[in-house]
Amino acid sequence: MTQSDKPISGEDSLIARYFKPLATDPGAFGLDDDAAALRAAGEDIVVTTDAIVEGVHFLRDDPPDTLARKALRVNLSDIAAKGAVPAGFVLTLALRGAEEAWLKPFARALGEDAAHFGCPLLGGDTVSTPGPLMISITAFGRVPQGTMVHRAGAQAGDRVFVTGTIGDAALGLDVLRGGPVAAALADDVVGRDFFAARYRVPQPRNALAKAVRTHASAAMDVSDGLAGDLTKLCAASGVAAVINVTSIPLSSAAAALLARKAIDIETLVAGGDDYELLCAVPSDHVDAFLRDARQAKVAVTAIGGLIAGLSPPSFLDGQGRELKLKRLSYSHF
Amino acid sequence: MTQSDKPISGEDSLIARYFKPLATDPGAFGLDDDAAALRAAGEDIVVTTDAIVEGVHFLRDDPPDTLARKALRVNLSDIAAKGAVPAGFVLTLALRGAEEAWLKPFARALGEDAAHFGCPLLGGDTVSTPGPLMISITAFGRVPQGTMVHRAGAQAGDRVFVTGTIGDAALGLDVLRGGPVAAALADDVVGRDFFAARYRVPQPRNALAKAVRTHASAAMDVSDGLAGDLTKLCAASGVAAVINVTSIPLSSAAAALLARKAIDIETLVAGGDDYELLCAVPSDHVDAFLRDARQAKVAVTAIGGLIAGLSPPSFLDGQGRELKLKRLSYSHF
Repeated sequence: MTQSDKPISGEDSLIARYFKPLATDPGAFGLDDDAAALRAAGEDIVVTTDAIVEGVHFLRDDPPDTLARKALRVNLSDIAAKGAVPAGFVLTLALRGAEEAWLKPFARALGEDAAHFGCPLLGGDTVSTPGPLMISITAFGRVPQGTMVHRAGAQAGDRVFVTGTIGDAALGLDVLRGGPVAAALADDVVGRDFFAARYRVPQPRNALAKAVRTHASAAMDVSDGLAGDLTKLCAASGVAAVINVTSIPLSSAAAALLARKAIDIETLVAGGDDYELLCAVPSDHVDAFLRDARQAKVAVTAIGGLIAGLSPPSFLDGQGRELKLKRLSYSHF
Repeated sequence: MTQSDKPISGEDSLIARYFKPLATDPGAFGLDDDAAALRAAGEDIVVTTDAIVEGVHFLRDDPPDTLARKALRVNLSDIAAKGAVPAGFVLTLALRGAEEAWLKPFARALGEDAAHFGCPLLGGDTVSTPGPLMISITAFGRVPQGTMVHRAGAQAGDRVFVTGTIGDAALGLDVLRGGPVAAALADDVVGRDFFAARYRVPQPRNALAKAVRTHASAAMDVSDGLAGDLTKLCAASGVAAVINVTSIPLSSAAAALLARKAIDIETLVAGGDDYELLCAVPSDHVDAFLRDARQAKVAVTAIGGLIAGLSPPSFLDGQGRELKLKRLSYSHF
């Protein structure tokens, strides 16, 4: 990008060629200036930043197109959780070199997602590094003044909802690393591909943002595992939670593995990288939330409720017995 | 920072302890949420991002306090060049580990600069890396709607101004690397320290932002060398420039080295890391610009003028002869 002050030497034009088409917002000035301008007519600009590092957050042989999508989507997921509408993003790429074979599919996929989610590239910096590839994105969203949804704000009596299905991405990471799930699915290439795709390309729930902003008392995205992230939301809100494990929405593929006892429930509720939304919804908003979610075509499932107290969330099985989780979240690598 | 989804394992509280005090803006929510909210009442939010990488943009043994200041100030310099008032920043730190001995002086210096320049920490992400240390900052500023100053916009007839003195930082890098300047200053520790400090801790000219916004037709900061950056401003504006080399403001220490022929002028005009401002000012605004700069207590110097044409800038010596520069900007390392 030409906004870079320290570009990959001699590769400016290559980078500009691939990233300029993504700078569709007039405030990006075609990446020809030192900064972008984000117009805000009485709205708040929601700002979030997430970086992914080769060998830490993604695998060395992950394809560049899925990396591009994941890097943007983990930020879009935060924007959605805060009830905001995407407004754009800036990209910092630390590369060992600027290879066309990598940059071309990376930029194409990033551009497709930017267009699909209405989140144009506003600027960036490209730096050379002798170390691992790193993709850092700061993304912006808009909310009406003072309406950003917080982690804090949930109350005793609120229902707890999650979007989509939980745990698939953790199984996908296991598949890609050739772990026990890969072994259990040795004869099931479709299953392996399904889980790998859920790990590599999360589905941010931006379509639900308005419903979250209108109805949720608190929300966050599930990135480090449902159990751990729910613990954080409860701690920020000063409440406790009771979760019915049998209500947690699972993909049919994950449910089948669980039925076969190839995995345990802990792998799913403590596994990371879901990028689903976790919301607390006051009971008098539940019907309207469900209706708005249906209109937004985002599956939401009630998994329990909030109660007074400061103890960690309880996860109850089908017989009402409390599961003892050895860990709340999953630590990669 | 607690906003990190993938923190340095087990070090969240250490990081939170050092960075929370920097999150003085109410929109940072004490770094306890997944995002920040930036209020904007009819203003444009100017966004710029710049990353620095160990071994590429800074030296491995650079002290953490100067790194913190440099990482923030290179962004503040862009905010100033665009005529904007600082509004805050987000920080992405890629660390090999979270060492208190490094984090403490880093966070303290960053906090001092954030307070001094009115640019609070709004959020961030801390990731672990097996590779070089990287500090990536995205900074925000505010301008009245539509008033961001661009690289494009300069016209033939405009005067060219720079702030401060040019070339000191390039000499500082040479000193730190033990190059010819270090040798020429073997007996002059004060001189060596002066140049090293100019390299390590640039002085962003945020006090001049309003004068730039009011009077400049185009502006940018000088980060890759005056000659190269002027070439970019001229290309973006579709004009040419004639610069009087003898007018270029030099520190007395740099002027002394030049007089001794220990360095040549090219080292100064093509050297990087100045982080001074380069502005084009229409002639009918020159008096008011000089007055406002004086009020802002920022030294500005007219170094030449813009003419019609698309040729690269001409650098004329005291006898009006054109210097042939072998290079326009300096490539580090």
